[in-house]
This record gives sequence, C-alpha cells and structure tokens, in this order.
Amino acid sequence: MSKRIAGPEIERLIQLLAKVPGLGPRSARRAALHLIKKKEQLLAPLADALAQAVDKVRVCSTCGNVDTTDPCMICTDPRRDPATLIVVEDVSDLWALERASAMNARYHVLGGTLSPLDGIGPEQLNVRALVDRVASGEVKEVILAVNATVEGQTTAHYLTDQLSDFDVKVTRLAHGVPVGGELDYLDEGTLAAALKSRTAF
Amino acid sequence: MSKRIAGPEIERLIQLLAKVPGLGPRSARRAALHLIKKKEQLLAPLADALAQAVDKVRVCSTCGNVDTTDPCMICTDPRRDPATLIVVEDVSDLWALERASAMNARYHVLGGTLSPLDGIGPEQLNVRALVDRVASGEVKEVILAVNATVEGQTTAHYLTDQLSDFDVKVTRLAHGVPVGGELDYLDEGTLAAALKSRTAF
Repeated sequence: MSKRIAGPEIERLIQLLAKVPGLGPRSARRAALHLIKKKEQLLAPLADALAQAVDKVRVCSTCGNVDTTDPCMICTDPRRDPATLIVVEDVSDLWALERASAMNARYHVLGGTLSPLDGIGPEQLNVRALVDRVASGEVKEVILAVNATVEGQTTAHYLTDQLSDFDVKVTRLAHGVPVGGELDYLDEGTLAAALKSRTAF
Repeated sequence: MSKRIAGPEIERLIQLLAKVPGLGPRSARRAALHLIKKKEQLLAPLADALAQAVDKVRVCSTCGNVDTTDPCMICTDPRRDPATLIVVEDVSDLWALERASAMNARYHVLGGTLSPLDGIGPEQLNVRALVDRVASGEVKEVILAVNATVEGQTTAHYLTDQLSDFDVKVTRLAHGVPVGGELDYLDEGTLAAALKSRTAF
C-alpha cells in the first residue's frame, strides 16, 4: 500500500502473504481481506494450522521427508517394501510420486541436486545417509527419480558411482511420450528416447 | 492427496491454504512445502500475523472498514476532510481508491450492493449508518464510488433517493477511457460516455 490505511498488523499480514508462492502483492491483499471476512471459518483455523506446523513439522532423520513425526509416516509404514528406495530431489517430488500411487516403496530425499557453481556439493545434499542406508544391506533396488535436467542427471551419475560398490540394482525413470501427450509438441530428445525404448504392442 | 503420506497437521494446512483466493489444491501444496522449508523466515511470522489478525481485526463502527482499531485509522485521521464521504461497496474498493491517493476524504463501506434476488435489501447493507452520518450535518459531498455494474448503479440510485432530503451534493465517478487504454478494445457504452463527457483540450 502506498500510504498507511490500516493498522500495522494488517499491513504485515499482507506483506507476509505476498511471499507465499502463488500469491503476489495484489493477490495478497485480496487474500488478506478474504481471510479477515471469513474470520471464524478460515482465518482462525489457518492461524491454528500454521502454528501447529511451526510446532510439529520436522525433517525425517531417516529419509529427509517432512512430517509431524520422526521417522516419518512413510518410513514407519510396515506395508512399504524396505527393499526398494526411490531417490528424489525434493519433498515435492516425493508427494508427486505418491499421488501417482505406482509404487509401494520407501524414499530418500536429497534436498537438491549437485551444482558446483552454486557451491552445492555432495556434503550439502543428503548423500551420506543414502549410502549408509544402502550399506545396511536391506535395500535391493535404488530408483533414481531425479528430474530429467542436466543437474538431475549429473547427480544421478554421481550417485550411481557412489553405490557401485554395493550389491544393489540402480535404475532410473523411463524417458518417453507423456501419457495423453501429442507427438507434434514433443522435443526431439524425448521422441528419440521414446523410439529407442519402444516396447512390443 | 490421494492417500495419506504425511501427518494430519500437514494435510489440514494444505486443505486450508487451498481455500485462500489465488491458491488452488496444487499451489496450496507448493505453498505449504515452501512455508515448511522457510520455517523461521516465513512460516512462524505468518502464523503469528494470522493469530494477531484473529485477535485484533474488527469492523469500524463508523464506516464499516476493517482495521485493528475502532474507529479505524481513516476515521480518526485528523488530516482527512470530514466534509467529503466516498461510498464504496467493499473494503477492497476502499483500498483501491487509497492506492490512487487522489482524495483525502473519509469513506463509508456498504458491504455489498442491493440485490433483491439474493435477498439483499437496504437492511443487509450499511445504509442506515450512512444516512445517519449525512444527517449529522458535517458531510457536504457524498461520492458514490460503486462499481459500474447494474447492481452498483441500482444501489447508487437508491442511495441518491435516500439522501435527497439532506443538504448534500451527491456525485459519482466519471465514465470514460481508462488511462493507458486503447479505444479499439473498449465497449460502445464506455466510448459513448467518454464522447458525451468530453473535456476541453
């Protein structure tokens, strides 16, 4: 706001809401007003939910996931196969894979990708714990579900190297045509990969 | 999330964030993760700001604005001209006009527009208090800054009627070409109004 038209509490709320991804300065104002108008139905419950999150959310010391318990719900779930470990860059990737509900495996969250120019080496990532988990002998397959970017693939190569001494199968996600995708809109690299990895019909 | 992958506190936070205007289910997940990662810089301050808002925000009994004091900062500002009253539908309109910084007036927030089909009559709006403020004699001009919609204009006509017995000038916002707007994209009604209200160059 160009000049002060409301108490500092409201202006601070707008400033903080503007930092939430998906909201900008304009939508933060709209969101603040909406919250204020829905005080009982939304503002108070959201304030409580955020306070609970401040209080209870922690990083899982086993896999690097975030949850309200440590170890997290996934690490302690007895129905999950401890022999399969899916390695992801970020918790958001873990959530995305869980939404697909394709595997009943456990996870390991790296917390980023190798990026020497940004000063991110193996020590800055959750790599040591990954090697320790594999070294414990329970894991039979490590699926490297990193992003198909240069940094992601560099990280995948590094991890393959680190895990080469152990009796563990290291796999990666298939490249190919996205389900529902049109060939005309796909890049050459994806099409070449999809042709190369063609399967029997 | 299709199946539970995190504690109920995190899922509740995502569900509540998804109700904030500007965020949907997908961006709520992204926002929740971002907040959790920036626990000290963003999550904790935002939780505090929302708790403060729950605690302190109230509706101004004079004008209907929302603020942390009652009467609000605008109603108690001695530098504002008490003779000019800008009538708006909603607090968001008040904030928009304040950003324009064009007038140093006071406000009156109706809280909506007349809409008989939705059961919104004068009693559901902040009309009685407006008439009382004008009747007190301090106000010399009432600017009806309602939206240029059918409901807004209906409300403006009703208010003009209600205020006709008092010695007060009732004005409305000018219609015309928006600053920076291109004629080609404007509707006929706006162009006709802009021509009719043309001014000397």
